[in-house]
Amino acid sequence: MIRGEHIQELVQDLLDQRRAGFSLPQAFYVDPALYEVDLDAVFGAEWLFACNACEIPKSGDYLTLEIGVNSIVVLRDREGGVRAFHNTCRHRGSRICTKETGRASVLVCPYHQWSYGLDGALRGARQMPKDFDRSDYGLVPAHVETICGMVYVSIADDPPDLSGFRRAVTPFIAPHAPERTKVAHVTTIVEEANWKLVIENNRECYHCAGNHPELLATLVEFALPDDPAGTAEFQGLIDAKTAKWDGLGLPHRPADGGDAFRCIRLPFHEGAVSFTPDGRPACAKLLGDLTEPDLGSVRMFRAPNNWNHFLSDHIIHFRVLPLSVDRTALRTTWLVHEDAVEGVDYDVETMTSVWTATNRQDADLAALNHRGIRSKAYRPGPYAPSEFMLTQFTDWYAGKLAAALPPPAMRMAAE
Amino acid sequence: MIRGEHIQELVQDLLDQRRAGFSLPQAFYVDPALYEVDLDAVFGAEWLFACNACEIPKSGDYLTLEIGVNSIVVLRDREGGVRAFHNTCRHRGSRICTKETGRASVLVCPYHQWSYGLDGALRGARQMPKDFDRSDYGLVPAHVETICGMVYVSIADDPPDLSGFRRAVTPFIAPHAPERTKVAHVTTIVEEANWKLVIENNRECYHCAGNHPELLATLVEFALPDDPAGTAEFQGLIDAKTAKWDGLGLPHRPADGGDAFRCIRLPFHEGAVSFTPDGRPACAKLLGDLTEPDLGSVRMFRAPNNWNHFLSDHIIHFRVLPLSVDRTALRTTWLVHEDAVEGVDYDVETMTSVWTATNRQDADLAALNHRGIRSKAYRPGPYAPSEFMLTQFTDWYAGKLAAALPPPAMRMAAE
Amino acid sequence: MIRGEHIQELVQDLLDQRRAGFSLPQAFYVDPALYEVDLDAVFGAEWLFACNACEIPKSGDYLTLEIGVNSIVVLRDREGGVRAFHNTCRHRGSRICTKETGRASVLVCPYHQWSYGLDGALRGARQMPKDFDRSDYGLVPAHVETICGMVYVSIADDPPDLSGFRRAVTPFIAPHAPERTKVAHVTTIVEEANWKLVIENNRECYHCAGNHPELLATLVEFALPDDPAGTAEFQGLIDAKTAKWDGLGLPHRPADGGDAFRCIRLPFHEGAVSFTPDGRPACAKLLGDLTEPDLGSVRMFRAPNNWNHFLSDHIIHFRVLPLSVDRTALRTTWLVHEDAVEGVDYDVETMTSVWTATNRQDADLAALNHRGIRSKAYRPGPYAPSEFMLTQFTDWYAGKLAAALPPPAMRMAAE
Repeated sequence: MIRGEHIQELVQDLLDQRRAGFSLPQAFYVDPALYEVDLDAVFGAEWLFACNACEIPKSGDYLTLEIGVNSIVVLRDREGGVRAFHNTCRHRGSRICTKETGRASVLVCPYHQWSYGLDGALRGARQMPKDFDRSDYGLVPAHVETICGMVYVSIADDPPDLSGFRRAVTPFIAPHAPERTKVAHVTTIVEEANWKLVIENNRECYHCAGNHPELLATLVEFALPDDPAGTAEFQGLIDAKTAKWDGLGLPHRPADGGDAFRCIRLPFHEGAVSFTPDGRPACAKLLGDLTEPDLGSVRMFRAPNNWNHFLSDHIIHFRVLPLSVDRTALRTTWLVHEDAVEGVDYDVETMTSVWTATNRQDADLAALNHRGIRSKAYRPGPYAPSEFMLTQFTDWYAGKLAAALPPPAMRMAAE
Repeated sequence: MIRGEHIQELVQDLLDQRRAGFSLPQAFYVDPALYEVDLDAVFGAEWLFACNACEIPKSGDYLTLEIGVNSIVVLRDREGGVRAFHNTCRHRGSRICTKETGRASVLVCPYHQWSYGLDGALRGARQMPKDFDRSDYGLVPAHVETICGMVYVSIADDPPDLSGFRRAVTPFIAPHAPERTKVAHVTTIVEEANWKLVIENNRECYHCAGNHPELLATLVEFALPDDPAGTAEFQGLIDAKTAKWDGLGLPHRPADGGDAFRCIRLPFHEGAVSFTPDGRPACAKLLGDLTEPDLGSVRMFRAPNNWNHFLSDHIIHFRVLPLSVDRTALRTTWLVHEDAVEGVDYDVETMTSVWTATNRQDADLAALNHRGIRSKAYRPGPYAPSEFMLTQFTDWYAGKLAAALPPPAMRMAAE
Repeated sequence: MIRGEHIQELVQDLLDQRRAGFSLPQAFYVDPALYEVDLDAVFGAEWLFACNACEIPKSGDYLTLEIGVNSIVVLRDREGGVRAFHNTCRHRGSRICTKETGRASVLVCPYHQWSYGLDGALRGARQMPKDFDRSDYGLVPAHVETICGMVYVSIADDPPDLSGFRRAVTPFIAPHAPERTKVAHVTTIVEEANWKLVIENNRECYHCAGNHPELLATLVEFALPDDPAGTAEFQGLIDAKTAKWDGLGLPHRPADGGDAFRCIRLPFHEGAVSFTPDGRPACAKLLGDLTEPDLGSVRMFRAPNNWNHFLSDHIIHFRVLPLSVDRTALRTTWLVHEDAVEGVDYDVETMTSVWTATNRQDADLAALNHRGIRSKAYRPGPYAPSEFMLTQFTDWYAGKLAAALPPPAMRMAAE
């Protein structure tokens, strides 16, 4: 719930000003007060993509991430399950795990060595008096769900239901066997832009022609099988590929995720099967038990913080986390078959060069977008038809904020 | 108009505390809320020196500058006129021109290639639907005026009249033929001080003796022909030079600019004619059709953001723009005759060394000034008689803020 | 007095939430508004350790320090006394002394050369009019007291009485003859933590075992002669050493400083007499007229900003000053006998290596502590028995804030 009468009024006014199909009113992108609202009503309330289950394969493997000021540790417990805890010691509040990834049989706070089991229970707290009850001082848990190898966490008290999302995307992703992958490469870059501009940048390819030569060597810029702007050549491509995928029993038609998520299989340009400079596979060993390289890419997008490409030979995950009103971290992971051998089956540079270049280009564009929006001359502008996913995203975002406001009646009564 | 009852009261209280002839109350220099007031009531309301017309000589030449968070592009249009626009795309708000200077026949937004003519009209917006009306989406214009080669812009809705300023300074500047100049050198430095301290630093030479050895090799530190502190030697210098200038028909007595601007011709030390280490001309080719090198310098100062020196052989423009409450950008441009040849007629190092050193010294002083003012022990101090231009500047500033407050009656009625 | 009804209510609410014996509620460590309260109610109201008198031995020697935004110059005047002034010129507010240490017969402002005597009186102000009265424009003084060679300053209008502190610590410190010392080394590091976390880090050795191998080579981690956690070996050590010190007439039992300060003499491990890697003396020439090296260390702690170790051969002073809500400067000085000769009697590296390493380790811990506390999962945790000085410090701190609030009756009346 958004707190404070003043800020509730501000949010309501801005929502009233908002015009669907247009970019958001300025304050949503640049006002530090709205950033705090986002941390509360979006990042503090939603499920967030955290990492891949294959990044923490063994008991005691952990990964940390920061949701605003909240550090979370995601770990593999002794029973093989995935758990998440707030990475804050119950003694005097120190961070416990200080690296992004690591392995530990118990989590030991570096300050005074209070130690916690992989179930979060306080195991050791030397020098504490006899009446000290360790059971009062376990780690504060966060919610966690694993869907097709993707670990989602939530720091909400009562996070929303994920079952619809799980049901919708599993048929698309499962054939790519994400549970039998390993990490080939990871990068994190910081974009000088509000997190929503990073998401908006990702949700359309209207900007691709002018900016992404490496990407467009293989990616087709239309996002719908029946894209009204699509050429006859594109239609032919769609017809040929979808016939093949139907034959293989692989889903491709858009899943119905409403404004919250999107899942679809789309082809590369004829002759291309992967995000490499020449379109050839990035990894000789295909994922899972796949034998057909020409599977296009399953493109999955989920508000508020991730998008993904599932190919025949590798998977790419993109994770967005806000650092401040005008800085956003983008973490990209490339996954390959767990038995693929670097230098034999794949070359990291070949696999990653297209999206490394694309990420850099997008970071530059998002920074220009953010700086321009700060101007008094900024007015919300109309999304193009090919930017339909931005209409969906901003509708979704506005809905989240509206839902985090107290009902108008309650607000009136409080006045 | 300054918005918000709380901030209006704060400004009024501070104005009431202010004592004419003394430095300003602390908050005016260090409070971020007052910085926002300055952006609104001064930089958002006034005419600001932007650049020299000779920096954008040909159609499509442009220059960008930032007035607070507002990026402005100043350009030469197809008809040879100078125009200014907000540098923010009407689609999704991206910055359009990303460099400080450049040339373009149309302004193309790097994000989605919306393109604007040099008149600001939206020319191209690919993929937009048929009912999209381009005439609704031209660039937002800013006001622009060119006076003696100096381009002034205003982002105010209804900027003040500039004709008095134009009338007063033209007789002084026109003989130096600024319309027939080119840029010899440009520097931009960032000073760690409030913009008003950068201006105050410029408006007096009381600090010169202790700080500017390079400058005082040629500059006389008295700012008035009848300076009461002036020596007999100075009076002799004034008498001799003004007789010469009267003979040449060149004005020299102070123009009446009130608190807003100042224009005067003053001599160098005997034997010196330019801001060079030895006082000799910096450029062998004199400006315009001048033949006499011994013209002293026309010193022009205008609130809120520029000062200038017009010499026989070159012109120096100083432009101040605020970056934050405690950081200010100072841009300095050196202009020479458009036909002067570098390496033949002038040497950049010789021409620029005096003011480059002086700017650096002033930046250090302004930073010390700002840091000292933050102290609880700061009390507004009395300006010396030689600091009369600071009394003028602070009176001007206080007047601008007072004018941006609603009338007291309106404020009472609102309570 | 804490100003503003809103902030008064916030502080009162937080004080009401506070539970003695537990770390403080989150906002006290991380909220910028509370940082301003600390600057006002603690650093603006208390006596603060500034430097050692031996750092300014001769007339005109000065040292500057920054208490929040307030720069203070501490100097030795012509009569040999120590004085403190706000380092802000009365003309236009510039910083006057721009270095951390220096010597000057008069303090000359670099801006316009206004000059002040070592008594703070304005001596020179060139160009000012005849009716300008210099006696109105002396430097603003700060309060200063020297206790056993330690210079304390206060920028409060009416600072608290220091006589009890002076009486209590003098018998412990005087035998170490701090007035006959000189500086062997100085370091300043910046810790990425709230100043209270830097203090809390210092006030317990519960964290030593896991973090300070260099320190524990010589330091015994128990802080009380009758520490309930103390081993039989420790008790034997205490009995043997205190018998020796009693024989020498050196006090060792804890002075009664309440929550505000603490002074005690404690032994090193058997065989060690100094904070060196091997426990041998760091300086061959003992302090003052001491002949016995085995004097343990007098540990002095005083809220809010210093702690000290007085050994037989050298003295270490630690000074804490806040830079922002999450950044704190720690200055450490090592003092030796004024006649000791570097390279002959002592080696700087040997003398300083233990605490240089310890300071670095503590800075890392304090930064982790600060970052962890920002989390929504932070809950104030229980101090261990060995953290009793943190209970004292937080009680002291809460008392200072409570004392800086207007009485509840006044607050109600104002509503």
